[in-house]
Amino acid sequence: MTSPDPDTGLLAPGWAGSPAAAATADGAYLQALLDAEAALTRAQAALGLAPPEAATAVTEAADAGRFDVRSLAERARGGGNPVIPLVADLTEAVGETYGPYVHRGATSQDILDTATMLVAARTLDLLPADLDRVQRALARLAAEHRDTAMPGRTLTQHAVPTTFGLKAAGWRALVLDARDRVAVVRDSLPAQLGGAAGTLAAFTVYGAEDAQALTAAFAAELGLRAPLLPWHTLRTPIADLAGCLAFTAGALGKIAADVLVLGRTEIAEVAEGGGGGSSAMPHKANPVRSTLITAAARRAPQLAATLYGSLAAEDERPAGAWHAEWEPLRDLLRLVGGAARDAAELTEGLRVHADTMREHLDLTHGLIVSERLSAELAPVLGRARAKALLTELAKRTYAEGVSLGELLAREPELKDVDLDEPTDPVRYTGSAGALTDRALERP
Amino acid sequence: MTSPDPDTGLLAPGWAGSPAAAATADGAYLQALLDAEAALTRAQAALGLAPPEAATAVTEAADAGRFDVRSLAERARGGGNPVIPLVADLTEAVGETYGPYVHRGATSQDILDTATMLVAARTLDLLPADLDRVQRALARLAAEHRDTAMPGRTLTQHAVPTTFGLKAAGWRALVLDARDRVAVVRDSLPAQLGGAAGTLAAFTVYGAEDAQALTAAFAAELGLRAPLLPWHTLRTPIADLAGCLAFTAGALGKIAADVLVLGRTEIAEVAEGGGGGSSAMPHKANPVRSTLITAAARRAPQLAATLYGSLAAEDERPAGAWHAEWEPLRDLLRLVGGAARDAAELTEGLRVHADTMREHLDLTHGLIVSERLSAELAPVLGRARAKALLTELAKRTYAEGVSLGELLAREPELKDVDLDEPTDPVRYTGSAGALTDRALERP
Amino acid sequence: MTSPDPDTGLLAPGWAGSPAAAATADGAYLQALLDAEAALTRAQAALGLAPPEAATAVTEAADAGRFDVRSLAERARGGGNPVIPLVADLTEAVGETYGPYVHRGATSQDILDTATMLVAARTLDLLPADLDRVQRALARLAAEHRDTAMPGRTLTQHAVPTTFGLKAAGWRALVLDARDRVAVVRDSLPAQLGGAAGTLAAFTVYGAEDAQALTAAFAAELGLRAPLLPWHTLRTPIADLAGCLAFTAGALGKIAADVLVLGRTEIAEVAEGGGGGSSAMPHKANPVRSTLITAAARRAPQLAATLYGSLAAEDERPAGAWHAEWEPLRDLLRLVGGAARDAAELTEGLRVHADTMREHLDLTHGLIVSERLSAELAPVLGRARAKALLTELAKRTYAEGVSLGELLAREPELKDVDLDEPTDPVRYTGSAGALTDRALERP
Amino acid sequence: MTSPDPDTGLLAPGWAGSPAAAATADGAYLQALLDAEAALTRAQAALGLAPPEAATAVTEAADAGRFDVRSLAERARGGGNPVIPLVADLTEAVGETYGPYVHRGATSQDILDTATMLVAARTLDLLPADLDRVQRALARLAAEHRDTAMPGRTLTQHAVPTTFGLKAAGWRALVLDARDRVAVVRDSLPAQLGGAAGTLAAFTVYGAEDAQALTAAFAAELGLRAPLLPWHTLRTPIADLAGCLAFTAGALGKIAADVLVLGRTEIAEVAEGGGGGSSAMPHKANPVRSTLITAAARRAPQLAATLYGSLAAEDERPAGAWHAEWEPLRDLLRLVGGAARDAAELTEGLRVHADTMREHLDLTHGLIVSERLSAELAPVLGRARAKALLTELAKRTYAEGVSLGELLAREPELKDVDLDEPTDPVRYTGSAGALTDRALERP
Repeated sequence: MTSPDPDTGLLAPGWAGSPAAAATADGAYLQALLDAEAALTRAQAALGLAPPEAATAVTEAADAGRFDVRSLAERARGGGNPVIPLVADLTEAVGETYGPYVHRGATSQDILDTATMLVAARTLDLLPADLDRVQRALARLAAEHRDTAMPGRTLTQHAVPTTFGLKAAGWRALVLDARDRVAVVRDSLPAQLGGAAGTLAAFTVYGAEDAQALTAAFAAELGLRAPLLPWHTLRTPIADLAGCLAFTAGALGKIAADVLVLGRTEIAEVAEGGGGGSSAMPHKANPVRSTLITAAARRAPQLAATLYGSLAAEDERPAGAWHAEWEPLRDLLRLVGGAARDAAELTEGLRVHADTMREHLDLTHGLIVSERLSAELAPVLGRARAKALLTELAKRTYAEGVSLGELLAREPELKDVDLDEPTDPVRYTGSAGALTDRALERP
Repeated sequence: MTSPDPDTGLLAPGWAGSPAAAATADGAYLQALLDAEAALTRAQAALGLAPPEAATAVTEAADAGRFDVRSLAERARGGGNPVIPLVADLTEAVGETYGPYVHRGATSQDILDTATMLVAARTLDLLPADLDRVQRALARLAAEHRDTAMPGRTLTQHAVPTTFGLKAAGWRALVLDARDRVAVVRDSLPAQLGGAAGTLAAFTVYGAEDAQALTAAFAAELGLRAPLLPWHTLRTPIADLAGCLAFTAGALGKIAADVLVLGRTEIAEVAEGGGGGSSAMPHKANPVRSTLITAAARRAPQLAATLYGSLAAEDERPAGAWHAEWEPLRDLLRLVGGAARDAAELTEGLRVHADTMREHLDLTHGLIVSERLSAELAPVLGRARAKALLTELAKRTYAEGVSLGELLAREPELKDVDLDEPTDPVRYTGSAGALTDRALERP
Repeated sequence: MTSPDPDTGLLAPGWAGSPAAAATADGAYLQALLDAEAALTRAQAALGLAPPEAATAVTEAADAGRFDVRSLAERARGGGNPVIPLVADLTEAVGETYGPYVHRGATSQDILDTATMLVAARTLDLLPADLDRVQRALARLAAEHRDTAMPGRTLTQHAVPTTFGLKAAGWRALVLDARDRVAVVRDSLPAQLGGAAGTLAAFTVYGAEDAQALTAAFAAELGLRAPLLPWHTLRTPIADLAGCLAFTAGALGKIAADVLVLGRTEIAEVAEGGGGGSSAMPHKANPVRSTLITAAARRAPQLAATLYGSLAAEDERPAGAWHAEWEPLRDLLRLVGGAARDAAELTEGLRVHADTMREHLDLTHGLIVSERLSAELAPVLGRARAKALLTELAKRTYAEGVSLGELLAREPELKDVDLDEPTDPVRYTGSAGALTDRALERP
Repeated sequence: MTSPDPDTGLLAPGWAGSPAAAATADGAYLQALLDAEAALTRAQAALGLAPPEAATAVTEAADAGRFDVRSLAERARGGGNPVIPLVADLTEAVGETYGPYVHRGATSQDILDTATMLVAARTLDLLPADLDRVQRALARLAAEHRDTAMPGRTLTQHAVPTTFGLKAAGWRALVLDARDRVAVVRDSLPAQLGGAAGTLAAFTVYGAEDAQALTAAFAAELGLRAPLLPWHTLRTPIADLAGCLAFTAGALGKIAADVLVLGRTEIAEVAEGGGGGSSAMPHKANPVRSTLITAAARRAPQLAATLYGSLAAEDERPAGAWHAEWEPLRDLLRLVGGAARDAAELTEGLRVHADTMREHLDLTHGLIVSERLSAELAPVLGRARAKALLTELAKRTYAEGVSLGELLAREPELKDVDLDEPTDPVRYTGSAGALTDRALERP
């Protein structure tokens, strides 16, 4: 038999070797499919629809290590899904006596959808720990740098000062938003049980008086929700997963985008703790964690789009829309799981250079506080004169290499005005501190 | 001045002329931008940062009919957004005395994001009425056809019977899921106020002791939430809109996909109430509502993908990711608004041909109940013999044009078995009725 | 060491076990990476920049079976790409003497991009055979059914007659379009060689007088084009692959979409040769090939979108846009390779039921030729009277279950008009035959 | 009647007011629809199927200014496309005598697809001028800065030197690739003529002996290609447009991405000629052209995905896939047209600060040439010693703030080695000059 975990991820340093990779590998799906089959027989036994021995036999046989995942994959071509050959192999493994109780009354989609929910649940269960590492690291950074002034940048240019604390608090807010969205979806993941066309009809023939009780028992066996209706073509769970995973990828992507900017050679206000090497230049410290998170964030939206697109699925089981979900959903789970791991390492190891941030506040020769000066000088000089003066001095500041504060100090009109505070970028961070404090109160 | 509503939608029969079209037209955005500016001045006045007369003056001037939307659109090129020229025009309209209070302390993004939330709120507010029409029509159809048997179809082929009631109940469940997701997002839409780089610094210079109180007052003026942090690059609200709108488009798309199948000339189990004509064939009744909903459902996921992609936005305001949101979000709002209108007409007018459904249950010569017969005959004949017999008869059924029930009745082995019920497709709908009842209890 | 082909495709019946799967597996990429490294050393040897023994040594060591793909995948995390650990392992395998000639002067991206082009070339080379099977099967079907009339369907409804020959000829035209687009791109695939930042500088230090000659030699070793410029961030080759693969998926998807419609239980004008079974209903013959092609066609556009999105990549090597290409491009190659295999089987095995098509032409009681009758009767009755009469009879036709031809025959006004031809749907196929002939002339 | 150009683009500074905006406005589509109708009647007249007076009458009536675009848009809901009401209005405008010749034999899709090709052709015809401005500006920059050394950047970090000439030459290569792809597609755009289901049947009834001659005449009237087959559901032209437009957006997006990086406040190696202002900070010069191009490049791939997704369209006219094409294709045309305009302004006005580039080469204290030094010192010191020495000095260089060159000069082992050239970043640009020269030879 083959390895239970054959997805190496050679093209996927973002998730290779991660817990999410293991949780979403072909072997993990195979085990989840078997878990679903075993749970179904157990649920039937619990309701008296199958002998307890059958439940035991199927449960014992349902061990991924005993099945040939490659063979299953290739035989899946015939009917278009892997459950058909798996049921054959599992039935044979269970043996003649209890084999007939394998998959009894179910349809392939019951098992594959349920297994998908199991895999999703198991992978989502890995996320909170990593997201929590991220948010705690960010909370620490935000608190530590509550008053670390740095240039606020808009459309790539210095605008007005902000603080690194506020930036980290903002990152954390996004991560908490992601955590909350993931938690809601995790908690809602349903088992699937409907039979051939979603009516649960076969189970009735096999003796179920209340087919919905079977659904409940099945879901309970697996720790999933019992759905109100079979959802073969009511794909809310898939769409909800798409949404929360695309969101999480984007939320982490925001952090990575900022780290990539702030870590540029010329900016160097932050640096990844353990920058990755280069095959050609041994000195280089690449922001590899941010890079891989960014790659995930670039891919996730289009994967989610494919899943949202599968909502509009015809009939009781569609010819293609369902099949188009399988790999993209797995890709999303892996990418987000890997990105969360990378984000934990990134944020925990992030080096912040407060002194460089401070130096950069002077890069515009004081123009970074021009907004404030416009406001402060208007009452003194009149609005029009204040504006004209600042415009004139702004030009001179670059030409002469003298700071705006110094030029203003030379203006006789302003000799009685205290210019120290208004020209100090560190003292023009507005409510950044208060906003940071408030944001950090969010649990 | 130009019309306040210049988007004709010549290429968009899905939303042209709809309330959502009016709510999202350039003119509506212009008014929302002005509403945001006026609310900002009023909020400042309320906190004593501006004279009450300024609030009145700005509010009076903030009338879209007085502005030239085309000119604003073209002048927006200069700075890359329409707020810059609008502030100039509005300031001029307000006049010399109170003009300086226009936009005071704000940044373009404060106004454009807030206006976007206003437009989103106003468009989402149109949805519940249409979605409610849809769900009520579907509840009626589900109840009425609780026991209307029809073929369940999987991968385009008849599988086992289901009921139209269960199908309609499933459609309704998706619509309720959409309604619930939209409601949560509608309720969360925040105003935006951060100033140049999200620190609210300028407002402090203008006298605000508690800049966050200003945010609260601003949001209250507009009926929006006060955000915990400025969200210039924390785009949760945009992503949440993307998610709930893509979901709604897909949910309605599922209904349309089924109607398109069931309304095919050969199937004709349902028909749109008022089919659309053709330019060449006067007799044709096209399923136009379903077609337009389908088109919306095909576009929405990729529009949402662009919005999810903008989560990973660098700095305090990104150079492109923000700008890439504007049109796709409007497109989503329009498409979903239009699709909800179409879905209301579609479901309210849907004609259901129960007799045709009944006839189609016989199209497979009784094979539609072969699943049941396998289960019922196994205890009688033994599992292997039952399977062999059914396989043999299945072949003969098509070859001889005789139903499976009739062929079974000729088998001596089965002379004592009551075949009437097991061969009646109408009596093989399993829990469809119970599931329908339960689903309809959901409010 | 691990298997050279560890991607089982359990969730991908569309490509599992296909030649394209083998050609794109982790093991195939690993071999392509090694091929690129070996070619680089050989090219250097050919230009006298390395001893011939080094070329031999590297070429001999460059055997994927000797490397641990899983270990490489996991160590790729450090630097963010698999070339870094591979160079370490390959250098070690080559040994102390010639190890220094491994990867000399190159950057990771040179090797990974070149390997990607090799994998793309090898996978695209599999396509023509399958596409040719498809087009030949379609040419045969088109010729055979040149005059097989069937309902033309628009917006799901019968419109006017067409022929199955024209439909098959149209499918073929799309497949030829795909073949041509793939061929152009296949022929253009370039090797990548630029060194750390695309200037080929290191090679000069190692003695290359004409670094571009090295590029040419490198490309020639691999059967790839020598590019005009290093294309580390000039991603035309990737975008061109995205375009031709998304096109091919869609072209095959069109065929599948039609087969799914025409093969519905109620329509049954065509059937897949070897329909796939169901886990619950042994009689069912599912259109599995069409289903899997459809699934590929649903995913390909979004995968292509991610690749097109990576065109806008910053700097000499981007932090994320490049990394986001790897898996989606492989997915596209696999999906299209698998879909071509499925399309070959689908079209070669397609069963066409001409008699059913003929029967369906009468489903609208003759209204399928109403367009023609409008035109033919106008000169006889006057335009207005012709229209009124047809409208009236159209209503009666459904109500009375009598064909339009019969009702017209009863009209005294028309007693001298020959209605046989105008009411015969088989004789209203216009230029379908001529168009089919012309389309089949395209080689 | 309404304005012929009612799309103001308030949310679209990227295309508002551009020639592409005018060429794709609702009014332009309306005129193209009318042009198609008039050409159809003229083609029929040319073949003797209609009186010449009819052709004259329809051509005269076919003036967009005479039609109410808003009314057409709203009435398009009924049948799901704007051609149906337009035919009614045009027939009325032509009058009783020749009205019957309007749209004779055609289907809505013939007209709408043909009009779409006209609009596409007219918009693509605007592109070469702008793309040529871009490529000429870039050729000039590349030649001018052939030897302007600057840091090559990979994963955001300085790697080895490159030249601005090579960078500009690379940008130009992408633009030429885009130009070539657009030209091929522009030249291939076909008219559409098939009648109700693509058989051209109605035209035969109206007397056309060779319906394909009519297609040829129709196409010739409009300057479009005559297609081999009607392409109602063979959407190669749409997919080809999607591909070349997404490519062009991405190619321009690459330039913008680099300008955004290089123009950052801290980097300032380039600057947009006319930076856009800010509503809050009068001194700010934002890279607005790059920002808007970036926004277009972010949206284009997903719009193209929707179009590629519509390839898989069922039947002779699909219920949704066709309708989903209209707005996204227009959006792509507009976005790319606008982006080309912006790119022309951007590249023509780009200011390049060669001195800043030179200064930045020293930012890594000489480590930017460490790749070269590794290669140069290995023969002198032995590979291992060279590596160890460089690693040690690299650490000291940052710690002591002394350049690598200086530290090396202090090493006794190297006292006889000429370190001037190997440590000079300006002399480590490899083949950048030669590559630039060669790339500029491409016409």
